[in-house]
Amino acid sequence: MKVTAIAGGVGGAKLIDGLAKSLSPNELTIIVNTGDDFDHLDLRICPDLDTICYTLAGISNPETGWGIINDSWNVLNSIKILGGPEWFQLGDKDLGTHIERTRRLHQGQTLSQVTSQFCDRLGIKYLVLPMSDQPVSTIIETTELGSLSFQDYFVKYRCQPVVNSIWFKGNKSALPAPGVIKAIDQSDAIVICPSNPWLSIDPVFSIPGILPKIIQKPSIAISPIIQGKAIKGPAAKLFMELGIEPSAIAVANHYENIIKSLVIDSLDGDLANEISKKGIIPFTTNTMMITSENRLQLAQDVLNFIERIID
Amino acid sequence: MKVTAIAGGVGGAKLIDGLAKSLSPNELTIIVNTGDDFDHLDLRICPDLDTICYTLAGISNPETGWGIINDSWNVLNSIKILGGPEWFQLGDKDLGTHIERTRRLHQGQTLSQVTSQFCDRLGIKYLVLPMSDQPVSTIIETTELGSLSFQDYFVKYRCQPVVNSIWFKGNKSALPAPGVIKAIDQSDAIVICPSNPWLSIDPVFSIPGILPKIIQKPSIAISPIIQGKAIKGPAAKLFMELGIEPSAIAVANHYENIIKSLVIDSLDGDLANEISKKGIIPFTTNTMMITSENRLQLAQDVLNFIERIID
Repeated sequence: MKVTAIAGGVGGAKLIDGLAKSLSPNELTIIVNTGDDFDHLDLRICPDLDTICYTLAGISNPETGWGIINDSWNVLNSIKILGGPEWFQLGDKDLGTHIERTRRLHQGQTLSQVTSQFCDRLGIKYLVLPMSDQPVSTIIETTELGSLSFQDYFVKYRCQPVVNSIWFKGNKSALPAPGVIKAIDQSDAIVICPSNPWLSIDPVFSIPGILPKIIQKPSIAISPIIQGKAIKGPAAKLFMELGIEPSAIAVANHYENIIKSLVIDSLDGDLANEISKKGIIPFTTNTMMITSENRLQLAQDVLNFIERIID
Repeated sequence: MKVTAIAGGVGGAKLIDGLAKSLSPNELTIIVNTGDDFDHLDLRICPDLDTICYTLAGISNPETGWGIINDSWNVLNSIKILGGPEWFQLGDKDLGTHIERTRRLHQGQTLSQVTSQFCDRLGIKYLVLPMSDQPVSTIIETTELGSLSFQDYFVKYRCQPVVNSIWFKGNKSALPAPGVIKAIDQSDAIVICPSNPWLSIDPVFSIPGILPKIIQKPSIAISPIIQGKAIKGPAAKLFMELGIEPSAIAVANHYENIIKSLVIDSLDGDLANEISKKGIIPFTTNTMMITSENRLQLAQDVLNFIERIID
């Protein structure tokens, strides 16, 4: 069975970790959101790509989900001493990635070429593709500060400004990265990872040509929202401001006409009936990925669910 | 007494350290060679400026003379893992300087502005000036590989190629950095530090306008060559290829018509007479700067010598 997974950062990476332990390299391709990519310290930072790659390479920081394990912070401390910007956390090992990527991009290589080379060097056997080689930026329209890049909104301003809308700058003229359409075409099913649908998956779907291909395939999404009422902090605030009910139902509504099936947490089992009425097949299981075993179990559950929807 | 010191990297920084411990900030200005500056990893590296500033800030690595004490190497290791260039040693703390400097230069600030800001942040009270805000590159013309930048010749190719000549790219259209001419004009004397005259001091003199001002002031140079016969390795090879006799006499010849006095090592006392015949006043003392006390002692000797030549 060939699967293409679409993923954002930390949440997506956990399922990717489980999928990679369940499928061989020719059975799994990963398409990664690059809407969060931005320039900082004149370096090109690709948070989701790096999180996925570090996870697949087995070097990700298990405490944060992002960055590299056992990293040091000497560069950032030095920049801080010199009065430079220190709001975005970048470890020293992690910075090596950004410096070397930026250097190669300046030389004229594409993001997918650089990503492929980095995967080779990190011993990653799975095909990891950015959604596009062209820069596409997730823009958060806010009441107080106008248009903010995702990282500015999320990290620099700690989600404080009121959000009016989200859009994707540069998406209309962007092309799917080489290999993206082929991977979807050759897949038996598409897995939409438990990343934020509005912030991490929509940017991928905003690239012309990707969604029409995806809807030709059986797709299964995993709801990143578990027990909506329990969602606190920035995500809850964002959902409220955008008028989104924070529940698996909202995820089902968002992916209506795209997905064939939605995996929800067992704790949300009472929502299965309503999801079913939308023509989406609900599956329930434990979707909390706290341990490595959780990741593997969810991945195997998802692959079993796929078997049941593709015949 | 107001003094302007002209310095290259490691050798120059040692005397600057001693001078700074002997003079107040309004008595000492340092003009630094930037001919070794280059772009690496798409970052602007200024080896001599950084060595001088790290030394004045008390954070230089005492073992190497360059870089920052107790630095880590995680960025470079990461770049190495990814297959990037690893031939130029850059510690993590040190990289913070290069990243933040490059960012500010890209924003349109000049090198002297950035240097001034960094000095403020590092608590350096002395005025440290790059020789010029325009990029001027020391170019090593070699038989085997043609034109090489200094760092390529010195670090990447480990001084292996045969050197035919040295020249300074961009010097003709470069201007002395703001403050350079004023510092010289207001000085009672000029100290030419024991840096390589051909590689580290000549670039400063190559900037139009600097040398005519210097020759109006009493200048004292400290020979970086002690007991010429003992010089081994790259410097000896370079001197031989350029037809330069490696001795304090060659330094005297090189600075003839520029300096009023030359400080040579006590071990070279037999050369004093010959130097004197050139119209240069020779002073002899211990010029080896192994310990911090050596640095201070040489600086105080130099200042005493200056008292005797400026009457």
